[in-house]
Amino acid sequence: VRVEGAGDSDSEITVAALGEDALVGSVIARYAASPSGVLVGPGDDAAVLEMPGRVVISTDTLVEGYDFLRKWSTAHDVGVKTAAQNLADIAAMGATPVALVVSVATPAELPATWARELADGLADECARAGAAVVGGDVSQATEIVITATALGLLTGPAVLRGGARPKDVVALAGATGFSAAGLALLRAETGGAGRAVLARLVRAHLAPRPGYSDGPVAAAAGATAMIDTSDGLLRDARRVAKASEVVLDLDSLALAPGEDLRAAATALGSPAAAMDWVLSGGEDHALLACFPLEVPLPAPFRRIGLVRADPEAGVLVDGRPYHGAEGWQHFR
Amino acid sequence: VRVEGAGDSDSEITVAALGEDALVGSVIARYAASPSGVLVGPGDDAAVLEMPGRVVISTDTLVEGYDFLRKWSTAHDVGVKTAAQNLADIAAMGATPVALVVSVATPAELPATWARELADGLADECARAGAAVVGGDVSQATEIVITATALGLLTGPAVLRGGARPKDVVALAGATGFSAAGLALLRAETGGAGRAVLARLVRAHLAPRPGYSDGPVAAAAGATAMIDTSDGLLRDARRVAKASEVVLDLDSLALAPGEDLRAAATALGSPAAAMDWVLSGGEDHALLACFPLEVPLPAPFRRIGLVRADPEAGVLVDGRPYHGAEGWQHFR
Repeated sequence: VRVEGAGDSDSEITVAALGEDALVGSVIARYAASPSGVLVGPGDDAAVLEMPGRVVISTDTLVEGYDFLRKWSTAHDVGVKTAAQNLADIAAMGATPVALVVSVATPAELPATWARELADGLADECARAGAAVVGGDVSQATEIVITATALGLLTGPAVLRGGARPKDVVALAGATGFSAAGLALLRAETGGAGRAVLARLVRAHLAPRPGYSDGPVAAAAGATAMIDTSDGLLRDARRVAKASEVVLDLDSLALAPGEDLRAAATALGSPAAAMDWVLSGGEDHALLACFPLEVPLPAPFRRIGLVRADPEAGVLVDGRPYHGAEGWQHFR
Repeated sequence: VRVEGAGDSDSEITVAALGEDALVGSVIARYAASPSGVLVGPGDDAAVLEMPGRVVISTDTLVEGYDFLRKWSTAHDVGVKTAAQNLADIAAMGATPVALVVSVATPAELPATWARELADGLADECARAGAAVVGGDVSQATEIVITATALGLLTGPAVLRGGARPKDVVALAGATGFSAAGLALLRAETGGAGRAVLARLVRAHLAPRPGYSDGPVAAAAGATAMIDTSDGLLRDARRVAKASEVVLDLDSLALAPGEDLRAAATALGSPAAAMDWVLSGGEDHALLACFPLEVPLPAPFRRIGLVRADPEAGVLVDGRPYHGAEGWQHFR
């Protein structure tokens, strides 16, 4: 799309100058590749999907200034993160991601290139998950607010939070603490530019890349309960514990921070932060799942604790309450 | 939920004081009634639905200050409008609304009662449509941004924008112009308080109540194309015309403003505004559909024009281009 009077580059054309119809048209062009189950993609009143199974749906929002900063994140990063947060919730039910719809509320002066790169990030992460962006909406607002809704397909039973039973093994796929460490590095402006290990943590914060297939793998292996650790391991484990009316007793040795997290904590001058990141840092989108004791844990799940019967549901670390940070909570 | 230090009424408790978990818990309680197809409702990582057919999905956003003002709309109104905008897009595909997920980004100082009344409005309008709120998300932002995503079930073929053929009849279910007239009354602060006919237009703007069953009825009757008139009759008709590569020739007599719109235009001192509202006013969520000439129009559709073959696709009124307002466009 060319706008009259524009130069060779359209890097400074705003979404307002481009206009809603042209903006939507140029973004839709980013979503051309549609899997076979997409009967109607973007561009009509709604999308139409062939979904031979049960349908799983979840929604999540990123707000500029609260969930991302344009000085830290590229538009592509924000697209990846938006898609990842939503698709990870689908995986956490044991389902396979299928589709995403995305609503973008934005100031009129947003560069149109930012909107297009956002679309690229969304499309890229959807492709990683085997899903597609099938629709969306654009509207005007004072700050950028991006809401995505993910759809997934479930052919077996859903794995809920409330199914953990005493003696189940607590297991984790993926790592926790990376996103929190990356955020701490960004805030400290050490950035990690010089050291690959730190840069990797920053990337984990800006553009998380969850393992979506871990969810269906856990479901097929007989997971009794599962949750996406989006708000911090302890907080999300507590949700499983409360819903299942059990105690999840986590093993601090199994959760000991690796070299990368320890390096970041040292670089920031607070070695103790590493374990706090692991236990309380959010936005990693690792999967916490419980499995019957007799089930061999499917890769990449590793054992991090045990489920215990207890009249007072909750989470323990090494058999004791853990007094540390509490995980991400909005409105504080 | 009681917050320490609060008085008898919680009308002044903010969402921040209540906290995210308590807020979500109290809102979820509003969504207790779930139709039989909802296997897992709000409260887990995602909702799970039994959907024996094709799945239709659409998303739409309302932003405070742009799409609603708290001085004009109650929270219940905003909930109804959010649900209606989304569910109408489902109907416009010929599908039956099934479920809604809702993401609310809000300032920390929003009264918790506002959030709960919003939930009530969403639930009420979903119930009118035979659907249910099955999930959501809450996050912090500078202004209120509400994004809903609607799911619908399609058992026959989808009715797209691009299927209109020359000689089809253009038909409309519902009225257009009411929402624009209501907005004009609100802006002029005549409010219509004293006159029921004007108050009805204001209600149509604040809390539209579309006829969701009209969509599946049109599909079953053999509609060739259909669109929700959310952005104004002419603009949406043009989308059908372009997608179908035809001309939609509308009949001004069939669209002549009724007594209520004329009364509002007179009250505002601009009698000519009534026809502009009909042709260009958005947010009415009437359904524009095309039917083969030989098909008896199903109620409540009424004939408003004819489809003509023309190399230059577009919309005419009485065979001529119409030079009036152009319908709602974001970013202007």
